[in-house]
Formats: sequence, structure tokens, C-alpha cells
Amino acid sequence: MHELKSFFSEVSEKIERKLDELIPPAAVEPRRLYEAVRWSVFGGGKRFRPALVFAVGRTFGAPDEKLLRTAAAVEMIHTYSLIHDDLPAMDDDDLRRGRATCHVKYDEATAILAGDLLQSLAFRSISEDTSLSDDVRLKVLAQIADGAAKMVAGQQLDLDAEGAEIDSSEIESIHQNKTGALISASACAGAIIGGAGDKELTAVRNYSSMLGLLFQITDDIIDVTQSSDVLGKTAAKDLAANKATYVSIYGLEHSRELAEQVRTEAVAAIDTLNRPVELLRDIADFILERTS
Amino acid sequence: MHELKSFFSEVSEKIERKLDELIPPAAVEPRRLYEAVRWSVFGGGKRFRPALVFAVGRTFGAPDEKLLRTAAAVEMIHTYSLIHDDLPAMDDDDLRRGRATCHVKYDEATAILAGDLLQSLAFRSISEDTSLSDDVRLKVLAQIADGAAKMVAGQQLDLDAEGAEIDSSEIESIHQNKTGALISASACAGAIIGGAGDKELTAVRNYSSMLGLLFQITDDIIDVTQSSDVLGKTAAKDLAANKATYVSIYGLEHSRELAEQVRTEAVAAIDTLNRPVELLRDIADFILERTS
Repeated sequence: MHELKSFFSEVSEKIERKLDELIPPAAVEPRRLYEAVRWSVFGGGKRFRPALVFAVGRTFGAPDEKLLRTAAAVEMIHTYSLIHDDLPAMDDDDLRRGRATCHVKYDEATAILAGDLLQSLAFRSISEDTSLSDDVRLKVLAQIADGAAKMVAGQQLDLDAEGAEIDSSEIESIHQNKTGALISASACAGAIIGGAGDKELTAVRNYSSMLGLLFQITDDIIDVTQSSDVLGKTAAKDLAANKATYVSIYGLEHSRELAEQVRTEAVAAIDTLNRPVELLRDIADFILERTS
Repeated sequence: MHELKSFFSEVSEKIERKLDELIPPAAVEPRRLYEAVRWSVFGGGKRFRPALVFAVGRTFGAPDEKLLRTAAAVEMIHTYSLIHDDLPAMDDDDLRRGRATCHVKYDEATAILAGDLLQSLAFRSISEDTSLSDDVRLKVLAQIADGAAKMVAGQQLDLDAEGAEIDSSEIESIHQNKTGALISASACAGAIIGGAGDKELTAVRNYSSMLGLLFQITDDIIDVTQSSDVLGKTAAKDLAANKATYVSIYGLEHSRELAEQVRTEAVAAIDTLNRPVELLRDIADFILERTS
């Protein structure tokens, strides 16, 4: 786990430098827009999706310079989704990672545009990534665009389910789209850049799909077990919003068992690969054990 | 002009069929999201940007089947921008093309997501366009992504300028980004698909940049000279919002002269091409003379 920590901080540093390069400086007009984008992008996220691009990419032998733009792009897409998710018409959140959300710090119109811009910049960044062959670049683009579209569908499913009685298959479908699709796209993009074959790509898809599920279950557990202070965002929010979560459907104890089981499946998927998968295994363990 | 009318209706029909194919059906979940997307996409737009992809593409000899997805994609990006622009936090418009805007017909959260989804679908559609070579596809993607990013910057500049005293160079910068960038990207994408050389691409860029300007000037003229009934949206809205327009800066008479002059420059740019440019000339004339 010690190595994993340094892996995450190494990736964060690289990604933040790349993001700083790809996002227009706050000194040019429209300054308010670029400031708002930077406020949200450099707000101290975990950089989990970019880390996954790196972890999977390196597992398949891709050099960092080929992974960097794609990793930055998935973080841009993730950040845009958080900005829009926090809007008053959506989750109406004032706090994110311990700081004011984008529309609170700036205003709603600017926050909508900041999210919109991040999505365009993400696709522009990959389409101009000359470190990748044309073929790989297009495959990565299609992968990320598909993940981004599914993410939005998942958000709508989540909204539709608010206050409704939903069962375990519905909650799974919500999260497979809302959180899982972009996590999976990030992992698969890393594999594609590393030249993974079809079978290997399927293994990565299965691994990352389980990882996304694990991420969501532990998120739901953390929401009810941690204080707002630790989270840097409003705690027990899902409960208050009457949102279906793994904990509300299965209870805390069974959710923890489910998380264990999903972690085992994630690891089983990559154990079939004839590659050095320690890092990918450590990531699954890390998500299982995370407390924030 | 008669031929131009049939060109526009031919393109509209083709584009709408393609859009129908590229956007998930309203019968699958999340239905509300796909219904909202379809409400806005099939709301009877002029399809001006797709028409420009076709007009320029055909001028350079590209077959329709190579232009279709790109044309549909720029219309998706345009529609997403309208959906977000109409939101209460932005222009707060209830009416668009004579019908309820997306957030009025559905709700704000769904409208935000519908716009977000359209942007992802646009990039996915091009990245999966196997009728184009990898190289052309990437060039088109970069072009469209750049236009989409500039469009958002222009919207922010426009917001920032509300109620402020701005001069003619500032209003030009707003519109070059807000309206001009996607119009230009559409024209250039058509040229790239048609295999235009660098010099030809520059001519198309100059032509379409003037066309975008012309479009905005005539838009401002129409806003003060037509009733809401004819427009299908709230008239004199810019005036009410104290927005700087060509008419508010130059007056109606001088704005009309300016439009004439810009049309002449647009046509001059393409007259240097050794290509059949009648259609492109007709389009410039059509925009100059449009009344809605």
C-alpha cells in the first residue's frame, strides 16, 4: 500500500502539470470561465480515473508520455460531470472536496459553461495527441466518448430513481452507467494505448467494471459512516435525499460483504492476464479499504 | 434562390434521418433523457451548420455519405448549446422555434444532461465514422472540438458583456467565438473531408468567418425588426436584456450596410477558388436577405 500511495501522488503530479498545459490560463479572456474551470480542476481530486489509465497502460507496457493526455482528458470529463452534478437543478451541493462548488464560487451560468468547456477540451486534447498513432487515437476517442455518454445516461437514471422504490438490479444499472462507464473507459483506454489484444481488453473491461461497482459500494458506505468534516462534502446526503444506495438496499453489513466479493471478482479478471498485475490488484484493495 | 431552398430541404431530410439513427430511441431507458434530446433536436431548426458541411464538402467533391455524420455532429453541438443557452441561469428562454424550450418541456436537470449528452454523442459519432480515413477523421474531430470550445468561450464573453459598455471590436470577438467558431468549423470540416489543400482551407476559413459575422449581424437586425410570432422566440430580447448588438452599436441603417459589405468579403474569399462556388455564393446571399 505504501507503493500505491507514491504511485497516486506521482500520477497526480504528472496529470496536474498536463492539465495546467491543456487548460487556457486564467490570465486570458474569458478569464472568469478559465478561472472557474481551474477552480474545479485543481480542487484536489483523487485523480482516480487518470491513475487507472496509467496503471493499466503501464501494465501493458505503454510509456507514460503516451498515457498523459488521455489521462488528463478523462479527468476533465470527470470534473465536468461533478460541476454539473453539483448545480442547484441537480444535486444542489455547496461543498466539494472541502471547498465551495463551482456555481457557488462563481455563478450558475459560468459553472454550466465551465463543464461544457471541459468536455470539449477533453476531446480536443485526445484528438490532437500526436504521441498516439491515428488508429489508437480514434479507438481511445470512441471509448471515452462512449463512456461519457453512458455517464450522462446514468445520471438521468439516478435522477429518475430519486424517491422511487428501486431494486438491486436497477441500482446496479444506475451505477454501471453513472460511475462505472467512465472508470471502465479509462482502464480500457490505457489497455488500448498499451496495445492490448481483444482478450486482454475483455479482461480489463471486466476488472474495471467490478472496480467501478466497488467504488460505488464503498462510496455509499463512506456516505453513512463518515462525517462531513472528513469527506469535505455534505455527509449522509444520499440518505437525506431519499436516494437508493447499496447501504439502503442491502444494509451496512451486507454491503461490506458485497464489496469484498466484488473485489475478489475484479482481481480474478486480471489474474488471467500474463502481465505484471500487482498494481491493479493493489488498486482494488485500496478501493475496498478506503475511508474517504 | 429556388435551388437553394431545395438544397436546404434536401440536407434537412438527410440530416434528420442520420440524427434519428445516431440518437438513442425514446423507447429505451433513460427515456426522459432521450425524449428531451429528441424534443430539442427535432424541433425544426434551419440546419444551417450541417448545410454548410454539405455545401463546402460538395464544392470540393466529397460524396454525401462522407459528410453525413460530421454534419449531424455539428447539429448536435449546436443543439446542445441552444439547450444550455436557454436555461434559467443563462438566457432564461421559454420559447425556441415556436415550442417550449427543453427545460420548460422537461425540467432543468434533464435539460442540462440532454445538452451534455449531445456533446458526447457528437464526438462519438465522428470518432466512429468509418467512411472517413483515420487521418481525416482526426482532423475533423480536432476542428469541431476547437470550434465547440471557442463557442463556449464566446458565450462567457457574451455573459460578461451584459449590461457593460462594449465597443465594436469586443462585440466582434464575442460573435467570432460564440457563433462564428462552430460555423467556421463546419465549413472547414466539409473542406477537409473534400480533401482541400492548405490554401483552399484558408479561403474556406475566411469565407465562413465572414459568413458567421453576416449571420450575427442579420440576427441582430431580425431581433429588432420582426415580431415574436414570426421568430418563434421572444423578439427584441437582446434590447430588453441590455445586450450589445450590432444594431445597438451601429444603428439599423449602418448595420444593413455592414451586412452588405461582409457578404461581399465572404464571396471574395471563395472567388479565388478554382471550384464551382455558386452554392456557397448563394448561401451568403441567402443569409444577407433572410428575414427569420
